[in-house]
Amino acid sequence: MRGYDELFSFFEKHLDELQFSHQPTELYGPIAYTLNLGGKRIRPVLTLMSCEMFGGDATDALPQAVAIELFHNFTLIHDDIMDDAPLRRGKRTVFKKWNPNIAILSGDTLFALAYQFAQQADRRLLPEILSVFNQTAIEVCEGQQYDLNYERMNNVSVDGYLKMIRLKTAVLFGASLKIGALIGGASEEHAENLYEFGLNIGMGFQLKDDLLDTFGDEHVFGKKTGGDILTNKKTFLYLSALERANDEQKEKLHHLYNTHDEDEEIKIRYVIDIFTQLKVFKAANLEIDKYWDNGLQSLDKIKISDENKEILLDVAYKMIVREK
Amino acid sequence: MRGYDELFSFFEKHLDELQFSHQPTELYGPIAYTLNLGGKRIRPVLTLMSCEMFGGDATDALPQAVAIELFHNFTLIHDDIMDDAPLRRGKRTVFKKWNPNIAILSGDTLFALAYQFAQQADRRLLPEILSVFNQTAIEVCEGQQYDLNYERMNNVSVDGYLKMIRLKTAVLFGASLKIGALIGGASEEHAENLYEFGLNIGMGFQLKDDLLDTFGDEHVFGKKTGGDILTNKKTFLYLSALERANDEQKEKLHHLYNTHDEDEEIKIRYVIDIFTQLKVFKAANLEIDKYWDNGLQSLDKIKISDENKEILLDVAYKMIVREK
Repeated sequence: MRGYDELFSFFEKHLDELQFSHQPTELYGPIAYTLNLGGKRIRPVLTLMSCEMFGGDATDALPQAVAIELFHNFTLIHDDIMDDAPLRRGKRTVFKKWNPNIAILSGDTLFALAYQFAQQADRRLLPEILSVFNQTAIEVCEGQQYDLNYERMNNVSVDGYLKMIRLKTAVLFGASLKIGALIGGASEEHAENLYEFGLNIGMGFQLKDDLLDTFGDEHVFGKKTGGDILTNKKTFLYLSALERANDEQKEKLHHLYNTHDEDEEIKIRYVIDIFTQLKVFKAANLEIDKYWDNGLQSLDKIKISDENKEILLDVAYKMIVREK
Repeated sequence: MRGYDELFSFFEKHLDELQFSHQPTELYGPIAYTLNLGGKRIRPVLTLMSCEMFGGDATDALPQAVAIELFHNFTLIHDDIMDDAPLRRGKRTVFKKWNPNIAILSGDTLFALAYQFAQQADRRLLPEILSVFNQTAIEVCEGQQYDLNYERMNNVSVDGYLKMIRLKTAVLFGASLKIGALIGGASEEHAENLYEFGLNIGMGFQLKDDLLDTFGDEHVFGKKTGGDILTNKKTFLYLSALERANDEQKEKLHHLYNTHDEDEEIKIRYVIDIFTQLKVFKAANLEIDKYWDNGLQSLDKIKISDENKEILLDVAYKMIVREK
């Protein structure tokens, strides 16, 4: 069983070879552009890894790994329109570089292409694989809708937030692992345990993202910290703070999150001050630890060698303790 | 084998029962709204019909019929954003009634739901069915992109236009029939002939749409004629006219199609005058006849009873000779 670096190169080489240079170029240009923006390719690597973990040949899981990466990139293209995001990985987003119509349609096409790859599985496994894929696709859309809803709501709970990130982000990690496991020959039970492992790691991954956005080292994280605060995003940190705050702190937070004319640096400092007083940094880390432990419990149930578990845990650990 | 009316009711009843009332309502509300706008359900009826045509049980084809109707409605929701269309079947479009983000995301979800239904097939047939479905989905996106491209181009050819409507509209009719046939037990060869039949009928259907928009009887057609002319749409009629026009007529057409400040009634009358001089009405009907004949040739190759062929031809004929 190969580790992250080897499988990353293996996947990247394959993705490069696929090209996406069909006609019309207005449609496939943005698709190639998006896929060339890079990224850590964690999801497809997890698919290949979980396939090898059960003794499978990662080559057999390549179409599904591609499908998952294409699906993920489709969601990025559409999310960027909805979030009015100008940049993605330091480059202009598709809807900014081209226009919203091109972004809608090239996203749709990427989604259809994802299914074209997902379908390339042994026909005995196809129904199971597609069930996971379809269910996940629907849940990711639902998660994005909750995310949009929460932007306009003033009474989002921490639980509501956790449900949202489970759908929007975590399930795709679960699905990536489960699909690879099925192709690798895992039993339905083992594949399901690996799904649970991925789901929990995915939760930790997103919570870590919230933390890095606010408390990360800008030079390591690669982007300006405090972005979530400036855009009034209701993250785990903000919602935990609200649940812990006294009336005065609550009022101050509400005020800071409902204004756009505060000086940026001052706003970030004020919010971080309250976050620090309320120990939400620690609360987030405890929450991440909880998901990590839950993930480990699911992994424990799977009968594979300790060596293979270590390789997987190495990736999972990097997803959660990362500094960028 | 049942006819259109019976299969329409059969499908409509099933679709009604499905409901689409999950959470979050912001996502599923627009989906239910769109599916309740009605429509002729020609595509799913064709799927059910082609299944029965080969002795299959239409119930077995219901999930695929639903998948095709959901996919079609997904394209309508996204196309309406791209075309900035305020109305669909007399009701407000999703992006106008809600907003573009809701329309993007509920469209995406509808697409994912379509796949969830498409997947519900006998596992021996699943790879073939999904191949048709995926290929068609990608082609429909490509067709929509060509349509968007042509809006900005001044040198679109009639051939380019025919290629566009083949992708955007006709292939889905072919796919509807082919998928039903496969489920009904047709051989790959027969299913492919039925695909060709559907493709040709679909071409005729779209050309008839162009004709009705310009030359239809408003009271029967149900919407104001001349809409394509007012929005400067490069239809078969316009492009054929340009190919037949002398320099003076060409200049006049270019002028009329590049201005928005002309009086509406006068603009329509001027354009129809030129269309009439250049006999494009007749040209379109000849083109429709050509596709009809091509379709018949494909149908002739299929060994099913004349009675069953008559039932299918009855639907196809209504698609092409319809007055609305």
